[in-house]
Amino acid sequence: MIKILVIHGPNLDRLGTRETQIYGTDTLDDINMAIQEFAKDQKVEVKIVQSNHEGEIVDEIGKARDWADAIVINPAGYTHTSVAIRDAIASCSLPTVEVHLSNIYAREEFRHRSLVAPVAAGQITGFGLQSYLLGLRAAIEIVKKRE
Amino acid sequence: MIKILVIHGPNLDRLGTRETQIYGTDTLDDINMAIQEFAKDQKVEVKIVQSNHEGEIVDEIGKARDWADAIVINPAGYTHTSVAIRDAIASCSLPTVEVHLSNIYAREEFRHRSLVAPVAAGQITGFGLQSYLLGLRAAIEIVKKRE
Amino acid sequence: MIKILVIHGPNLDRLGTRETQIYGTDTLDDINMAIQEFAKDQKVEVKIVQSNHEGEIVDEIGKARDWADAIVINPAGYTHTSVAIRDAIASCSLPTVEVHLSNIYAREEFRHRSLVAPVAAGQITGFGLQSYLLGLRAAIEIVKKRE
Amino acid sequence: MIKILVIHGPNLDRLGTRETQIYGTDTLDDINMAIQEFAKDQKVEVKIVQSNHEGEIVDEIGKARDWADAIVINPAGYTHTSVAIRDAIASCSLPTVEVHLSNIYAREEFRHRSLVAPVAAGQITGFGLQSYLLGLRAAIEIVKKRE
Amino acid sequence: MIKILVIHGPNLDRLGTRETQIYGTDTLDDINMAIQEFAKDQKVEVKIVQSNHEGEIVDEIGKARDWADAIVINPAGYTHTSVAIRDAIASCSLPTVEVHLSNIYAREEFRHRSLVAPVAAGQITGFGLQSYLLGLRAAIEIVKKRE
Amino acid sequence: MIKILVIHGPNLDRLGTRETQIYGTDTLDDINMAIQEFAKDQKVEVKIVQSNHEGEIVDEIGKARDWADAIVINPAGYTHTSVAIRDAIASCSLPTVEVHLSNIYAREEFRHRSLVAPVAAGQITGFGLQSYLLGLRAAIEIVKKRE
Amino acid sequence: MIKILVIHGPNLDRLGTRETQIYGTDTLDDINMAIQEFAKDQKVEVKIVQSNHEGEIVDEIGKARDWADAIVINPAGYTHTSVAIRDAIASCSLPTVEVHLSNIYAREEFRHRSLVAPVAAGQITGFGLQSYLLGLRAAIEIVKKRE
Amino acid sequence: MIKILVIHGPNLDRLGTRETQIYGTDTLDDINMAIQEFAKDQKVEVKIVQSNHEGEIVDEIGKARDWADAIVINPAGYTHTSVAIRDAIASCSLPTVEVHLSNIYAREEFRHRSLVAPVAAGQITGFGLQSYLLGLRAAIEIVKKRE
Amino acid sequence: MIKILVIHGPNLDRLGTRETQIYGTDTLDDINMAIQEFAKDQKVEVKIVQSNHEGEIVDEIGKARDWADAIVINPAGYTHTSVAIRDAIASCSLPTVEVHLSNIYAREEFRHRSLVAPVAAGQITGFGLQSYLLGLRAAIEIVKKRE
Amino acid sequence: MIKILVIHGPNLDRLGTRETQIYGTDTLDDINMAIQEFAKDQKVEVKIVQSNHEGEIVDEIGKARDWADAIVINPAGYTHTSVAIRDAIASCSLPTVEVHLSNIYAREEFRHRSLVAPVAAGQITGFGLQSYLLGLRAAIEIVKKRE
Amino acid sequence: MIKILVIHGPNLDRLGTRETQIYGTDTLDDINMAIQEFAKDQKVEVKIVQSNHEGEIVDEIGKARDWADAIVINPAGYTHTSVAIRDAIASCSLPTVEVHLSNIYAREEFRHRSLVAPVAAGQITGFGLQSYLLGLRAAIEIVKKRE
Amino acid sequence: MIKILVIHGPNLDRLGTRETQIYGTDTLDDINMAIQEFAKDQKVEVKIVQSNHEGEIVDEIGKARDWADAIVINPAGYTHTSVAIRDAIASCSLPTVEVHLSNIYAREEFRHRSLVAPVAAGQITGFGLQSYLLGLRAAIEIVKKRE
Repeated sequence: MIKILVIHGPNLDRLGTRETQIYGTDTLDDINMAIQEFAKDQKVEVKIVQSNHEGEIVDEIGKARDWADAIVINPAGYTHTSVAIRDAIASCSLPTVEVHLSNIYAREEFRHRSLVAPVAAGQITGFGLQSYLLGLRAAIEIVKKRE
Repeated sequence: MIKILVIHGPNLDRLGTRETQIYGTDTLDDINMAIQEFAKDQKVEVKIVQSNHEGEIVDEIGKARDWADAIVINPAGYTHTSVAIRDAIASCSLPTVEVHLSNIYAREEFRHRSLVAPVAAGQITGFGLQSYLLGLRAAIEIVKKRE
Repeated sequence: MIKILVIHGPNLDRLGTRETQIYGTDTLDDINMAIQEFAKDQKVEVKIVQSNHEGEIVDEIGKARDWADAIVINPAGYTHTSVAIRDAIASCSLPTVEVHLSNIYAREEFRHRSLVAPVAAGQITGFGLQSYLLGLRAAIEIVKKRE
Repeated sequence: MIKILVIHGPNLDRLGTRETQIYGTDTLDDINMAIQEFAKDQKVEVKIVQSNHEGEIVDEIGKARDWADAIVINPAGYTHTSVAIRDAIASCSLPTVEVHLSNIYAREEFRHRSLVAPVAAGQITGFGLQSYLLGLRAAIEIVKKRE
Repeated sequence: MIKILVIHGPNLDRLGTRETQIYGTDTLDDINMAIQEFAKDQKVEVKIVQSNHEGEIVDEIGKARDWADAIVINPAGYTHTSVAIRDAIASCSLPTVEVHLSNIYAREEFRHRSLVAPVAAGQITGFGLQSYLLGLRAAIEIVKKRE
Repeated sequence: MIKILVIHGPNLDRLGTRETQIYGTDTLDDINMAIQEFAKDQKVEVKIVQSNHEGEIVDEIGKARDWADAIVINPAGYTHTSVAIRDAIASCSLPTVEVHLSNIYAREEFRHRSLVAPVAAGQITGFGLQSYLLGLRAAIEIVKKRE
Repeated sequence: MIKILVIHGPNLDRLGTRETQIYGTDTLDDINMAIQEFAKDQKVEVKIVQSNHEGEIVDEIGKARDWADAIVINPAGYTHTSVAIRDAIASCSLPTVEVHLSNIYAREEFRHRSLVAPVAAGQITGFGLQSYLLGLRAAIEIVKKRE
Repeated sequence: MIKILVIHGPNLDRLGTRETQIYGTDTLDDINMAIQEFAKDQKVEVKIVQSNHEGEIVDEIGKARDWADAIVINPAGYTHTSVAIRDAIASCSLPTVEVHLSNIYAREEFRHRSLVAPVAAGQITGFGLQSYLLGLRAAIEIVKKRE
Repeated sequence: MIKILVIHGPNLDRLGTRETQIYGTDTLDDINMAIQEFAKDQKVEVKIVQSNHEGEIVDEIGKARDWADAIVINPAGYTHTSVAIRDAIASCSLPTVEVHLSNIYAREEFRHRSLVAPVAAGQITGFGLQSYLLGLRAAIEIVKKRE
Repeated sequence: MIKILVIHGPNLDRLGTRETQIYGTDTLDDINMAIQEFAKDQKVEVKIVQSNHEGEIVDEIGKARDWADAIVINPAGYTHTSVAIRDAIASCSLPTVEVHLSNIYAREEFRHRSLVAPVAAGQITGFGLQSYLLGLRAAIEIVKKRE
Repeated sequence: MIKILVIHGPNLDRLGTRETQIYGTDTLDDINMAIQEFAKDQKVEVKIVQSNHEGEIVDEIGKARDWADAIVINPAGYTHTSVAIRDAIASCSLPTVEVHLSNIYAREEFRHRSLVAPVAAGQITGFGLQSYLLGLRAAIEIVKKRE
Repeated sequence: MIKILVIHGPNLDRLGTRETQIYGTDTLDDINMAIQEFAKDQKVEVKIVQSNHEGEIVDEIGKARDWADAIVINPAGYTHTSVAIRDAIASCSLPTVEVHLSNIYAREEFRHRSLVAPVAAGQITGFGLQSYLLGLRAAIEIVKKRE
């Protein structure tokens, strides 16, 4: 059974109540339920982690090498500033899909550069909750192809 | 029935035989067959266009206003240089999904900036043939939500 | 009788129905009628061309050397990206007036640089339909002065 | 009766005798006479001001709110350096047309950026004395449309 | 009673003993006592937090939504690098005042850009311990005005 | 008795009637009255000057050496363009507090750099009328400390 | 027999009559006759194409894979703006020699960067008609060496 | 006895198994054993810390003031992004040697700038495990010299 | 008899009492006396002007055309920001020597670019009072050579 | 008889044994023999110089004015850093052809800018030994044309 | 026996008497004696060269291929400007250690970029005389490992 | 008796015969005779050196410490590229005056930055032969003042 680590970056624990014009009205619970339901449909196993701490995200990616087949990550604010998360992804050999709720290319200039993207398998941005589900699909396809 | 215009930009007519380490071994026919099959499954109608001409792509987007519900576009080389295609997408009110076969953020610096992305609904990059299918899913979801 | 080539660049065939807060509600037909009427008043002859194709615009400028006295051009999206159109204008010795419907300096950063402006006689931006009429006036004055 | 403030920026009091290859041979008196004559034709009233002082230009724009319907300004050397004049134009709600005798985009790099343009209604550059007359026409059209 | 969260960013726990030419000789305890005394005078309640951890600061801001009326934050080293803290402030709707002990604009180039400032209500820099007290005043005024 | 020079830069004479979403509805008279009242409370003397002329502001700062203990200045549009005012502040040894009504870091890119800030004691931005009062407090504290 | 595709980019159909101080007095016919004569001498076959259309140049390069041994291309105005032509050359495995009539490094700044050069075998610039003949020689040498 | 704090930054806990072409095959245990052995030889005491958390590294440096004579730090991914760690080093007066396993100047552009280097005593990069031992030597020499 | 206009820019009226490590201890009176004495020796006539107002300096240069043979100017803070003064110098055909008391290239980055220098005959910087005397010599030589 | 100076810049004395994937396997002797043979065929005289010293290359160019008709130069590492060699070429009026063995535009960013190119007649890059022979042809053509 | 070439770049012949706050008080003789002593201890042979001439340094590196096992180089002022020395190091296959007396990252901006570093094995900066000895150790380790 | 080293940089040995519109018609001999004559008048001793070799110039400056009181240098092409000469001047404590024949600020962009200027006492540019004589005067004044 394919196992996937899903990581939610900083501030995503507060989703759905504010700045809804940017991030939509789905709460993190809504997203996680949709992810779990989708995982069941696809017969894959997902572990979901949320953290506001860059170091914890690095820790989780480091540990994922031992059990996961792929990573789906929304690095949120760390997308543009974290070399540490980039290096964690690069040094773990798992296929990684970067996802974003909002279209980061339609926002402030500094959000246009992702430090993570060059070491990810690919990136999906702008589709709200769907970004995660599409990201899971992409991850599953890559794992299946490798097998 | 949802109708989607799928646009392949310049050089994609030559896919699958060269630079396969970047773009994979799928030919344009393989991709188009997969798209049509997927469309049948999803019960949507797709019209597929390939052109090496920036002006023809602008023409097609302009005409799409009259019949399509959404656009999935791989602008290829025009991604980074065409304000005309960007303006065409912006001035037509159809939800547009930008897709790329390769991970453009893992390639040359000049490929990191998409002129199209800020006016697209979202972007999917790096998953080969799957980028198109995920792009179609995303487009369908957006159209359904709007209805 | 003074002869002037008027060129409308990409996407201008779709004017007046969308993004009206930027480009106004005049359609291309409205503009062309106003131009023709104005030409009649001024007793000059105008040929009006619209194209979404960079190459066709280059072709038209190339041919204009043989018959026209001046050019009024709204290069639209090609303003910022086309060295080919710039070179066409530079290599044809006709006085050329660059016009824009919207104030390009009040829009996105990349619209602030015109590749055409340095080889044009002058530029008129921001007055909607009037930009064309003022542009024609300017062109006529230049031609008259040269005679 | 429409009232328009015409502002000539620094060094324009010395026009017509030097650097004539850039600015032409018209003196400021020639330009002002042409403006007045044009105003009489158009049945509008113009007040013409020339100043080498940034602060005086700010003063004039500030006072114009109380009597004028529009402004036509050639900020000359202050075009590229004066946030104060930009702010004066932005904070006064009068439609403002920026004009230049020479084609600033065909000159030194630092002349390509106008701090005034983003808050003006539009810009007219490169037509010598005609830039002013075209600018007046543009201003009159805007005022008429608003009424 | 108005409630304000005061956040001290990284390294501020070591204040007052070193680099006193930049940060002054007040220790964090001195500052905190002055803040508490001032709060008592103003009859507002303050909760003071110091952390070297970006994630903890994000956590605190996230939780502040539930109890605080405003935030006074000295993000210290994270001022220039943390999109996560910026996003936390932006997504929490509390008025936030950014304060700095030293004048960051008189120091190294990289300290001149604050990622936090654009989403804060305002910024106060350069007055040592007074920056906090002025920041509290500013925060109280904003809260009172909103009520 | 502490004596403070308060300087209002260009366009501030027109406050409170336009662009109120940026600068608020207080007029310059409102601000000046609040400053005078505050000065009386604090038992300090203030001289208030408003000028649209860079040179006059330089003059005033130059003369302040002879009578004032500190300066509170809102350089407005000259903040970003005036080396002359910066040099005036640097060459006069009076502690100077830079204030702004609006949050300049939340506005256009060119407003993010203050030429004055590096030679000021500190900067207070974004609190409307309060920016001046906080600035006066800061100035008084610095003068008292020096004594 | 070695077969070479020679491509003339935009505006080259108008050579020899204008801007002769930059491009010389040779017309495109003169150049083509010299190329054909040279080809006959060298016993190679050349097909010569001129187009003002980026898309047509991409088309020709795409088709060249099926019959040509090498390409000699003067991309003219597209040199600096066309990722599509760059990608066409990169994806076709034919050795490609980029040529220019004028010395592009002695002209405007934006002409100093060729998007084509990094994927070409080499570049020859500045020798007028001779650039083409030297380019043909270079292409022939490369093809012979590969055999 | 000289006491030195050795800090390993993020992802170094995973050394030696992946990306060995960049970082070599030594595991963190190998490095730590070599460090301890070297320390014994040199008769100095070392405390070794590894953390993926920026905040913990700041904490450790802050505490080091109380017991250590010098610091040897490999900030890894935080090298290029952490002002907080830079400030921690600057505010603690201990001589600090920055070390890197790989030659950061032979890698991606963004790795060429170290925020830590300007406040370190010096930097040693590119010698794998030896970078640490050379760093310890350098640190010991500096401490000895100061005594 | 050769006539030279000597212009002192903003803040130079306050010379010699502050920031003496940068500008030296000579007051403006000292400098002016030295200039007058030197002029007497050289048998030339000088008119000396000091102003803090950009506009007045432009005015003076404009008037100088009518009576002076050369200009020696220390534009001080306007050196780096005034296109108006640059244009005044360029449009008046008098040979102009730019002088500076301090070595502007050894100071802040923004002082390294002079807008005036490209239109001056030459520049002399860094020699205190001597810069003026050397500037006068240079101006005299140029005038003599022209005669 | 036409006389040409051929200059090989730094490190070219070591050609052919290392980094052969970049520079090919030809040694400098191979290249020089090919040059001499070619010269004999073309009935021109060549003098070949190799130097690792920027100053010697400047010396040689300076002396060439007295005897040579043209220069063919591969400035190697000095291409990107030597204003002195550029000035030597500019101040000697001999037509100069810049050649490179490798395609400098396909290598590191800093190799894309040649300080020499703007003052050369033209540039030939990427054809190994052939670059020299093509360069000689180009030089001979230019000299013949001038005669 | 391992043989190492030690190169001292420009101005290092004058060490120890001036700018001692940057470079320390050791003279070049002191450093050379320390190097020789260290070499004796380590039983390696060193040849030490000092030159102010870029070309001589290139010459020495070129010759080193024939006899040396490694290079330790302090390129001094050429660090930031010499592509020729970079190319010499790259084309000679000897492991090269770049050393600096001072911490170049704590000095002027232009000293932060080393053209040599990307082709060196590693870099050691900031430890005065010790930088050389640590550099020799590093070089010896690399050579031993390769054997 | 004051002793001054005068250095002429690369290509100045060829002065006076070419590019006379930039550098004038004086030959190096003319300049040297004028310098010697001026020195005799001023009763100072000058030693004049010309070299095209960066290293030789560094050598001369290094030796000047032992005998000279000041340096007058025209670094010509090395002005913009030589850190080595800058360091030589900085490390020798002699007052150094940088001179240029032409106005470097009126020429190509890359000539606007002098690496030497920040460590020189001052700079004199644009006065042809007079630049040297003015430079000598400046140097003599500085030496006299120090005595």
